[in-house]
Amino acid sequence: MSFKRDGERGRNLTALMDFYELTMAKGYFNNGMGDTTAVFDMFFRRVPDGGGFAIMAGVQQLIEYLESLVFTEKDIETLRRKGFDEAFLDYLRNFKFTCDVWAVPEGTPIFPGEPIITVKGPVIQAQLIETMVLLCINHQSLIATKANRIVRAADGRAVMEFGSRRAQGFDGAIYGARAAYIGGCVGTACAMSERDFGIPALGTMAHSWVQMFDTELEAFCTYAREYPDNCTLLIDTYNVTKSGVPNAIEAFRREVLPRGFRPKGVRIDSGDITYLSKKVRKMLDEAGFEDCAIVASNSLDEIIIRDMLIQGAKVDSFGVGERLITASSAPVFGGVYKLVAIERDGKYIPKIKISENVEKITTPCFKNLWRLYDNATNKAIADVITLDGEVIDDSQPYELFDPVYTWKRKTVTDYTAKPLRVKLFEGGKCVYECPDLKTTQQFCKEQVATLWDEVTRFENPHKYYVDLSQALWEEKNALLSTKVKK
Amino acid sequence: MSFKRDGERGRNLTALMDFYELTMAKGYFNNGMGDTTAVFDMFFRRVPDGGGFAIMAGVQQLIEYLESLVFTEKDIETLRRKGFDEAFLDYLRNFKFTCDVWAVPEGTPIFPGEPIITVKGPVIQAQLIETMVLLCINHQSLIATKANRIVRAADGRAVMEFGSRRAQGFDGAIYGARAAYIGGCVGTACAMSERDFGIPALGTMAHSWVQMFDTELEAFCTYAREYPDNCTLLIDTYNVTKSGVPNAIEAFRREVLPRGFRPKGVRIDSGDITYLSKKVRKMLDEAGFEDCAIVASNSLDEIIIRDMLIQGAKVDSFGVGERLITASSAPVFGGVYKLVAIERDGKYIPKIKISENVEKITTPCFKNLWRLYDNATNKAIADVITLDGEVIDDSQPYELFDPVYTWKRKTVTDYTAKPLRVKLFEGGKCVYECPDLKTTQQFCKEQVATLWDEVTRFENPHKYYVDLSQALWEEKNALLSTKVKK
Repeated sequence: MSFKRDGERGRNLTALMDFYELTMAKGYFNNGMGDTTAVFDMFFRRVPDGGGFAIMAGVQQLIEYLESLVFTEKDIETLRRKGFDEAFLDYLRNFKFTCDVWAVPEGTPIFPGEPIITVKGPVIQAQLIETMVLLCINHQSLIATKANRIVRAADGRAVMEFGSRRAQGFDGAIYGARAAYIGGCVGTACAMSERDFGIPALGTMAHSWVQMFDTELEAFCTYAREYPDNCTLLIDTYNVTKSGVPNAIEAFRREVLPRGFRPKGVRIDSGDITYLSKKVRKMLDEAGFEDCAIVASNSLDEIIIRDMLIQGAKVDSFGVGERLITASSAPVFGGVYKLVAIERDGKYIPKIKISENVEKITTPCFKNLWRLYDNATNKAIADVITLDGEVIDDSQPYELFDPVYTWKRKTVTDYTAKPLRVKLFEGGKCVYECPDLKTTQQFCKEQVATLWDEVTRFENPHKYYVDLSQALWEEKNALLSTKVKK
Repeated sequence: MSFKRDGERGRNLTALMDFYELTMAKGYFNNGMGDTTAVFDMFFRRVPDGGGFAIMAGVQQLIEYLESLVFTEKDIETLRRKGFDEAFLDYLRNFKFTCDVWAVPEGTPIFPGEPIITVKGPVIQAQLIETMVLLCINHQSLIATKANRIVRAADGRAVMEFGSRRAQGFDGAIYGARAAYIGGCVGTACAMSERDFGIPALGTMAHSWVQMFDTELEAFCTYAREYPDNCTLLIDTYNVTKSGVPNAIEAFRREVLPRGFRPKGVRIDSGDITYLSKKVRKMLDEAGFEDCAIVASNSLDEIIIRDMLIQGAKVDSFGVGERLITASSAPVFGGVYKLVAIERDGKYIPKIKISENVEKITTPCFKNLWRLYDNATNKAIADVITLDGEVIDDSQPYELFDPVYTWKRKTVTDYTAKPLRVKLFEGGKCVYECPDLKTTQQFCKEQVATLWDEVTRFENPHKYYVDLSQALWEEKNALLSTKVKK
């Protein structure tokens, strides 16, 4: 049994589950249903912020969780006090994860309704892991998606993640920094995230550094002497243009140039940054520091950054804090985990959840997920959800159709069809190794580049096609008719 | 040196800090300033959701962090690769926390501008802990404040925290459940939070339980046989009134009553819950199950709950998920940590941060915080921030005045003045023990009851008085004049 733990953090998170997973587990166990093979899908219904796509993230942490599933004696004791019987507690004590798991790799653009994770195995196991499947993927996909929006708004300028202090809990900071990096941030303020994930940690000074000295100039000179090769000064403690910039220029001349270095930058953390950045740029240029960068921070997000750039802000890089680390404008990634099939006598029986709310109706069956790329442009044309085992033969034309407005049809030719998911676990054994983070960040960038501009715009993006294969569509509609008739 | 760790989670979170804390620390260290005594305050500027007050939380986790501050060899090695010199790394290796720390106890209503945490000690130490002071308090105060709003909206009905799957990271779920309990939730869905904090964990079944069986009735009967003494059934998998309620009633009659129990409840998780709850109540009552409770869930918050109750929803308890665990309508608690004084030659020199944005100007000096209660009503009249050492003698009348509109004055008599903060650390040693969570929850309820209705309403609450003493006001204004003249 693997005891691989959560890196330096050394936590066993097995008990981080909704209590109903345990009441159901005991029910299955006592009714001889525990070994029934079930298939669950994770999917989400809406892209946060009204965006056209999301970015998959959190797979590495899900793998680590699934590899370290062990109920401790403390877990068992807690459940005993809650009234669980000894036979079931023995089952938990000897719990061994044996499911198959598929996932869309981290960094991939994902769309509503797609099975981004599928778990197949004994229902008792596949059900027990629900909370952590959702928690791992929901959190990091939320932040990677937001980071990607902000990075795209910055239009080639560097974006750093600065949000630890406003994160929702310690992991919000640590894994948030990880997800932000996948989404395209170049670094983080969080020292631990460099230690654990190799994400470059960056930072210079707070206002308190400036306040600690009798004058701003003394504060700047002391810092410049300490870091002449990497000197970025925070210029808004008292007054940016009257005091901050003149003192910074003086400190650069006194302490940086004589040591044979060029100043690195100045940071503005308050006020009207668009206005100030132009004034500061002019003052720096006139002093001969055309190469000194301007860093902006203070409650930024993709909308503010886009507006700043439209108005000609002279900013070279952005530090983005609370609005990134909490995805504050839409802080929930609403992934759900639904039963889609059970196996009986060697056959899959599809399962569906009906709802008066049409968007809440699930797509049944054990499925697979494909992405079709146009060979001429290398752009993504559509995703197709098929039954497991169905193959899209890209040597043949393929007819796409809208699953609701089925008369809307389009035949594609000269395309490449790729299965979008990888197998993470086979019979409970991990068979996948996540690429390193830098590779994942690069992969994300490349994959986002396969999307048409119509899909990536912030306002009113085009709805990317996520279609069902003919066979899957027929299965779903047959089941819907039966169930709704009841 | 204390090695007390973070409970079962066993993490050392020392490195969870903004990188600039380390660049500044090295600067102070190399310039002989590391031992200068500095005073930092944590305060916040705005109550989330436009509310009239917030709830303090996260003190316990801050204490645990401060008691386990140890840079590991892995931390040191990471910093060595970042270019820190050996003398400074040796300092970190032998780091010992020796500061004094004060805090407002958990569960207390807090207001903008108040020093809810104060840290006094060698600047290098007091600065290094900035990120975690803010992270611990910002996160849990955010969730406790939101939970308290939701609990007040539910008007005496039980509210359960159901949000783990949508939390921002593992700690978002675990400590979020803790904060929600302080704010007044009666329980959580998170099994780990019962194990670690003793918060009652609750839960029954997911839709997948119902889907696992050939019929809803079979699913209900199986569950009822398993839990006849605690039978709550989820009735919206197919159709609440046509199928869910009739099947639930049948299952209660077949499997619960014959075993000598009464059914516990039904849960509705989709659809128009206000409408459905009235229909369901009528059907249950007509079947003789007047004592069977109705539980509602599905993207609830304080506004929806208030509206449901105004429209006469027949709901006995609420399960609240994503909108509580992320405080989604205002997911950032914007606490900051600012230098307010340094000690030189035995005297405190006040420090201020100026800003063009008036609300961002800090209140300087080493301070204390008092709450004045009216003796006749036991209601809170005002909070007063004083200089450290100042005493409010409640045997004498006290003149309150608005720190901006200073002609607005009010003299209070027959009141009790209580210092609002406790000392957590004395010379780096913890001298405070947090009450158990149940006690803190009760304390919170009692303290919220000391606030006038005008302060607790959701829309346009009255601004509670947070005033400065005459002496502190004079210090602040003297400093402002000097600095702004520069």
